[in-house]
Amino acid sequence: MSTKKISSVVIRRLPRYYRYLGELRDSGVERISSRELSVRMKVTASQIRQDLNNFGGFGQQGYGYNVEHLFNEIGKILGIDRPHSMIIIGAGNFGQAIAKYSDFRKRGFCLEGIFDNDPEKEGKEISGVKVQMMDKMPDFIRDNKIEIAALLVPKSAAASITKVLVDSGIKAIWNFAHTDLNVPDSIPVENVHLSESLMRLSYSLSGQGSQKERNAR
Amino acid sequence: MSTKKISSVVIRRLPRYYRYLGELRDSGVERISSRELSVRMKVTASQIRQDLNNFGGFGQQGYGYNVEHLFNEIGKILGIDRPHSMIIIGAGNFGQAIAKYSDFRKRGFCLEGIFDNDPEKEGKEISGVKVQMMDKMPDFIRDNKIEIAALLVPKSAAASITKVLVDSGIKAIWNFAHTDLNVPDSIPVENVHLSESLMRLSYSLSGQGSQKERNAR
Repeated sequence: MSTKKISSVVIRRLPRYYRYLGELRDSGVERISSRELSVRMKVTASQIRQDLNNFGGFGQQGYGYNVEHLFNEIGKILGIDRPHSMIIIGAGNFGQAIAKYSDFRKRGFCLEGIFDNDPEKEGKEISGVKVQMMDKMPDFIRDNKIEIAALLVPKSAAASITKVLVDSGIKAIWNFAHTDLNVPDSIPVENVHLSESLMRLSYSLSGQGSQKERNAR
Repeated sequence: MSTKKISSVVIRRLPRYYRYLGELRDSGVERISSRELSVRMKVTASQIRQDLNNFGGFGQQGYGYNVEHLFNEIGKILGIDRPHSMIIIGAGNFGQAIAKYSDFRKRGFCLEGIFDNDPEKEGKEISGVKVQMMDKMPDFIRDNKIEIAALLVPKSAAASITKVLVDSGIKAIWNFAHTDLNVPDSIPVENVHLSESLMRLSYSLSGQGSQKERNAR
């Protein structure tokens, strides 16, 4: 694996490659050319070659890509070749839906705890994990070396909880609160701003922007 | 409003401008310079000027941007100055969470129907909307001129339902199924691939990529 800096645009696209390669692998395909992959993924073959060249010599002229190898290499680059510990903050509708979503576990994201500040939810079991009160969270993160916190709380609560998460040594935040979090540079944040996604759809409805462009994002 | 083609990268960023301007407006701020906005949004002032220049003359040298005006103009560009009708397909955990999420209604996205193929869910009320069986969906879309379908079904069901949606005249799809949909170019699709978001977080955890880059995405 090359150690050179990969642009964030390419990184954005990697999970999609990973998904297609996983599907190909599961259906028994052993190798694929950039041209065939480009037809399936609806992006240009040259973009595929450029993107995958970032990771050095996976493709061979006249042979194509070894599906299994490329799948595994991208998995390593994405860091999903090892398990990650995760907690959910906020046991509301979205928090519960995330807790019950089995796809994450399949990818090695292990749900270790769920926290809420509603005493009525205390001890309630969601996907086999008991809801704990928020004041238990700092020790829990430290004691269990939790890496990722999925933040599913109202915007108004996000800043104060984020501070507690950072002080407790969280390594990364998956943020669903509709606000930008203020964290040290060393703590990555991945935002899922559903309202913004819906606004982009509303924009597209007005007829501007093509499907091709949207695929390339 | 300028009618020239705006790049999809700028469009991706517009909802975030819209959010910051809305917060500024709500806290009584009437105008703001690109420099002040750049400090708040943690992007460069020159990017802000470049982005907003796409929409023509909203900023004035030495005065800055009129917050209310810019907020409204971006709202118009995003098409959220008028209501949009929406249905939810799939009344599982995520479907119910989306149905109960009040932020969308505030932005003018009106939930008109919820559909599922589980007879046990038929007639169940979620956020004041009754779950209907899937076979009612085509007529419902036609009769009520539904614009947006939020697709919250398993990957395996996504393709066949998408075909029905397209044949019934849906205008846009908000896709949560972890697969790419095959639709005519005229029907915009906005994907929310949660697994991919989590993989990007996993990648960032490995220490590659900086916060600055992530903000700029």
